[in-house]
Amino acid sequence: MLVIGERINGMFRNVRRAIENKDKAIIHQVAERQIEAGADALDINVGPTRGKATDNMLWLIETVQEVTDKTLCIDTPKFDVMQEALRACENPRLINSTKATEEELEKYTALAVETNSRLIALTIDARGVPADVDGRVAMGATIVTKAMEAGMGIPDLYIDPVILPVNVAPKGPEHVMEAIRQLKLLSDPPPKFLIGLSNVSQSCRETHLINRIFLAMAISAGLDGAIMDATDRDLMEAAITAELLMEKQIYCDDYVSAYLRSR
Amino acid sequence: MLVIGERINGMFRNVRRAIENKDKAIIHQVAERQIEAGADALDINVGPTRGKATDNMLWLIETVQEVTDKTLCIDTPKFDVMQEALRACENPRLINSTKATEEELEKYTALAVETNSRLIALTIDARGVPADVDGRVAMGATIVTKAMEAGMGIPDLYIDPVILPVNVAPKGPEHVMEAIRQLKLLSDPPPKFLIGLSNVSQSCRETHLINRIFLAMAISAGLDGAIMDATDRDLMEAAITAELLMEKQIYCDDYVSAYLRSR
Repeated sequence: MLVIGERINGMFRNVRRAIENKDKAIIHQVAERQIEAGADALDINVGPTRGKATDNMLWLIETVQEVTDKTLCIDTPKFDVMQEALRACENPRLINSTKATEEELEKYTALAVETNSRLIALTIDARGVPADVDGRVAMGATIVTKAMEAGMGIPDLYIDPVILPVNVAPKGPEHVMEAIRQLKLLSDPPPKFLIGLSNVSQSCRETHLINRIFLAMAISAGLDGAIMDATDRDLMEAAITAELLMEKQIYCDDYVSAYLRSR
Repeated sequence: MLVIGERINGMFRNVRRAIENKDKAIIHQVAERQIEAGADALDINVGPTRGKATDNMLWLIETVQEVTDKTLCIDTPKFDVMQEALRACENPRLINSTKATEEELEKYTALAVETNSRLIALTIDARGVPADVDGRVAMGATIVTKAMEAGMGIPDLYIDPVILPVNVAPKGPEHVMEAIRQLKLLSDPPPKFLIGLSNVSQSCRETHLINRIFLAMAISAGLDGAIMDATDRDLMEAAITAELLMEKQIYCDDYVSAYLRSR
């Protein structure tokens, strides 16, 4: 399972201040904590910080690269910032993200091939997130087709079927799981599947509980990765146990520590 | 979700002693604790107690009935004890259990119809538990056919696809979930699905963690009930959250308490 640590994001106040004050120690600490807790990759998002987005992003990448050679998941909606960031990034690269419109897919799949990056593609188009399974599956098919046309390796493609908060979209969890099951059959090898986990519990009270139970369920449907808080120990244990139960790890009594030691 | 409290079982030392000493207070306390914690039904198993099994069972049923009118899940491998127990039980009755051999199914489905009881049928035959999905599905089909022939209401039928300990049968969790998914499509209305949950983690170290993560995964595959320890609060929260995410409950901030209050 690809655990992408979600905390290096300017939405969090300590990170925003660190970016604005160019305080490397804070960023190093946040990155190291996620990695020590089991993150395989780090999401890198400057968020709503003051200053030029490209400059902030390049500083953030450089700073994080000082403490890790793990994959950086470059998270920006701006194509020009993404281009600059991928050029500056020496670690393995994951583009976060493209939408499923033809125009965006062509641009981003070409960029992924050109920069030898993996790519996250959301099942969102100009009309938004589909309200059903079929819409997600149709967009997933478009994503795979466009990635093939661009010459991408399909195992480098992560489809994000977009989980919405359960308090406003109660059918969302079932739709996402069923979309994953159906899209897994679409090509051989199949694309991978990833979600931005904390969305499922946004504005809910029991965020941690909902996150970890949905993660376990989604892993049983075939989920390959999540952008999540690796330092939430209960969440990591849920993920590792779900993978054990899906036979992605051999049982031993201390399978949780064994998983973490293997990162 | 049908939560069947697992603790009234002579395998637990305090229960065995209470049965042997005819100590009603202990049994009342164990029963009340399971129900207060959210159990919808109580498994009733005399286990390896001294004395005549029928006498012990009848005493246990009478004692539990003094404190609850919830369903009693009569758990004995002996057909004559089961017959006596069902006659003595005034609460709603669930037979636990029949195997999937033709002979046993005919006997137990007839008994279920005769005594107006629901029935748990295990996907086990003379050769044991199938090592794959297909074997479980084939036995499930036999179970449904025999129940129909006996005139049982199919919603009164609980198929138990038999989860084995993950440390000896690593493919078991996937097989059980896939068997449930396939068997759900077998009839309309479908039978229900139930497991003896704690089996999945038998002899494992992280029993509670494995139990609750597998329960959440199995609920997402269509599980309707489990024999489990209702007093394990983390386990109940996992079950309730999984049901929320499967849209079996309407969201509110205190959905866990709301579920428990509704029992």
